[in-house]
Amino acid sequence: MKKVVKFGGSSLASAAQFAKVAQIIKSDKQRKFVVASAPGKRNSADTKVTDMLYGCYALAEEGKAFDKELAAIEARYQEIIDGLELTVSLSEDFKTIADNFKAKAGKDYAASRGEFLNSKLLAAYLGFEFVDAAEMICFKQSGEFNAEKTNELVAARLEKVEYAVIPGFYGSSPDGKAKTFSRGGSDITGSIVARAVRADVYENWTDVSGVLVADPRIINDPEVIDVITYKELRELSYMGFSVLHEDAIFPVRVEGIPINIRNTNDPAAEGTWIVASTCQKSKYTITGIAGKKGFCSVTLEKDMMNAEVGFGRRVLQAFEDNDISFEHLPSGIDTMTVLVHQDEFMHKEANVVSALHRLTHPDGIEIESDLALVAVVGRGMKSARGTAGRIFAALAHANVNVKMIDQGSSELNIIIGVRNEDFEVAIKAIYDIFVSSRL
Amino acid sequence: MKKVVKFGGSSLASAAQFAKVAQIIKSDKQRKFVVASAPGKRNSADTKVTDMLYGCYALAEEGKAFDKELAAIEARYQEIIDGLELTVSLSEDFKTIADNFKAKAGKDYAASRGEFLNSKLLAAYLGFEFVDAAEMICFKQSGEFNAEKTNELVAARLEKVEYAVIPGFYGSSPDGKAKTFSRGGSDITGSIVARAVRADVYENWTDVSGVLVADPRIINDPEVIDVITYKELRELSYMGFSVLHEDAIFPVRVEGIPINIRNTNDPAAEGTWIVASTCQKSKYTITGIAGKKGFCSVTLEKDMMNAEVGFGRRVLQAFEDNDISFEHLPSGIDTMTVLVHQDEFMHKEANVVSALHRLTHPDGIEIESDLALVAVVGRGMKSARGTAGRIFAALAHANVNVKMIDQGSSELNIIIGVRNEDFEVAIKAIYDIFVSSRL
Repeated sequence: MKKVVKFGGSSLASAAQFAKVAQIIKSDKQRKFVVASAPGKRNSADTKVTDMLYGCYALAEEGKAFDKELAAIEARYQEIIDGLELTVSLSEDFKTIADNFKAKAGKDYAASRGEFLNSKLLAAYLGFEFVDAAEMICFKQSGEFNAEKTNELVAARLEKVEYAVIPGFYGSSPDGKAKTFSRGGSDITGSIVARAVRADVYENWTDVSGVLVADPRIINDPEVIDVITYKELRELSYMGFSVLHEDAIFPVRVEGIPINIRNTNDPAAEGTWIVASTCQKSKYTITGIAGKKGFCSVTLEKDMMNAEVGFGRRVLQAFEDNDISFEHLPSGIDTMTVLVHQDEFMHKEANVVSALHRLTHPDGIEIESDLALVAVVGRGMKSARGTAGRIFAALAHANVNVKMIDQGSSELNIIIGVRNEDFEVAIKAIYDIFVSSRL
Repeated sequence: MKKVVKFGGSSLASAAQFAKVAQIIKSDKQRKFVVASAPGKRNSADTKVTDMLYGCYALAEEGKAFDKELAAIEARYQEIIDGLELTVSLSEDFKTIADNFKAKAGKDYAASRGEFLNSKLLAAYLGFEFVDAAEMICFKQSGEFNAEKTNELVAARLEKVEYAVIPGFYGSSPDGKAKTFSRGGSDITGSIVARAVRADVYENWTDVSGVLVADPRIINDPEVIDVITYKELRELSYMGFSVLHEDAIFPVRVEGIPINIRNTNDPAAEGTWIVASTCQKSKYTITGIAGKKGFCSVTLEKDMMNAEVGFGRRVLQAFEDNDISFEHLPSGIDTMTVLVHQDEFMHKEANVVSALHRLTHPDGIEIESDLALVAVVGRGMKSARGTAGRIFAALAHANVNVKMIDQGSSELNIIIGVRNEDFEVAIKAIYDIFVSSRL
């Protein structure tokens, strides 16, 4: 048995958190490969070290002095060193960083130092080997992640290593420069390592007790999901769930390795299992509810459009030519609606509309903005008849006007368009009927 | 006030029916322009004259004798002449038809004679002028209907005419050959005439008391719709409603002329009004339910497809390249489903699938056949919250598995995918909840 464990920024923000993390790791000998984030916030008013690094490097890039700012970052690490009574010193590292900042080594290099230094400290504290991600995680010159080469390198590098700490978030380009994933990318690093070493489980330790059924900013103290499939999570992540980086699922999915979301501050809690498939039913028929605001609908009307082979394709062409991706394409008879992100669409509206006229000669085009999408996701919906009825009854009862419905034949989700202002009400209504009242 | 009245085949199938029709026309002096169909069935075992003509001409085209068959057609008309004690004779006409059949004047010419002869008889019986559609209804050489030229010709030809009978269903090509609309096209002729003479109403007389809320083959004695908008009817027609030819709406719509569907066998009944818009609410929240069987769903899965600008367009390209039009395109996250007509798709399946692979590199493609679509249409759905809830509750209660939902932002309809075998049950369940029990 081999476990890869990843700890998020808040789990590694202070000496006290380091101590909790060490206890978790040491309590299970199978926790062999540790992926570490940069120190996060120690309290809600605090600044993440990654943000301090971005700020500091911005000064360096402008040719301004950044000594004070870099010193503040060093102090954050020193506090951890002192708190844990470690004998390591990072002063050489900080000299190198200062030199590289002056040489304008890049924003990605700057950001990556947060994980780099934190992993060094954690390795020293645990007595594990430190293995730099730059050696193993590769990007192509285009900036795209090189999954297969990385997988080989990580597997080879860690083959003979028993215990190691690996910094998350970054790797390197073919030219040797540091290159990061998008924000929250340490989740991806953990998943990559888990895949490469063929771990039995990928534990992702964070500051919540698992994946929640709905957004805690909307639902007060929402339930934790016990088991969720990759696909379900992927759908929820896309629609705004943020417990795990949305791309972190792909590497482990190749090997079918389950992810276990755990809470560093409550290690006894089982957390959430993210698995390839399961015979376990969701406790509440639905698995989760997520959503996003800020969509626009562009509705075309044209008599007999269904008889025109290529009509839909030409509609999408008009959006593609303006580099706008669409979210949904509900269609009636003689009408077709394209749902797009408002911020992407807004500045290109005139171009898209004229392209639509040119390519499709519609009888009319109507645009509605400030729409939100709510996704109700659940593997149990396929077998539980009446889910749609319950959802729409709940929305009607809450006076929410349903602008759009899209349910594909995957039957894993129903996506509902509502007005932005109805967004929270809609999520509450659906949560209530399935989870709170279990009607 | 000017009314254009069109009578269907069953309204003009026999002398007795002719008498009813004449009484209807004579009872209202505003009924000035009459569009007539060919004689339909006199009873359920009977053959429509149009079908007899097709059969007869098929023999002529093969160079076989067709005298007996043509004589049978002549007998049908003679029966009407005798029954009405008319003094007209069609024997010259039948000689011309025999000659033209021998000269292979075309299938469309053959079919058009049904309306031509019946209109002559009706004109004689009413004492109205007979105006041949061939003079006014024009097609382009491509076969496409030439709406604008026709409108000018009909307006000019009928300007000085007070009362006329015009055969429905056909017109002529630039080369002078007869050319018909698709089956049921007399409805279109009536609409064209109504537009050209700027009628106040287009009365469409048939053998049912109006547009029904649902298919009487599925629902026993369904309610009649009192008022329906062009758009609603257009949606229902597309999905299988057959009271009026689906293209018959377009000409009158240009002028906003209402259509009144009436029953020749029950002229006192108000029938159904088909209007541009109305403040009248539907009696039952929904206006009508229609549907079709025989669809296939092609579901593509691909990680991160939403991030790929152009993905949807390329999916549709694969179908377009194989000359297949799609009906709906519901999409989730990482999945997209294309709904197509099974009969169109079946023989091209392999080509489409390989084109999809080539153009979109999906992770997987799944095909499901034998699906049906049910459309619930109603202008009242926009303001009546909870319609979707009622529909899906009814379907759940009836144990119908909902495979797809598509509601665009027109909010005029909800389209639901179910299995073919659940089709009738689904329509019954929806009819019951909105109409029978009005829950």
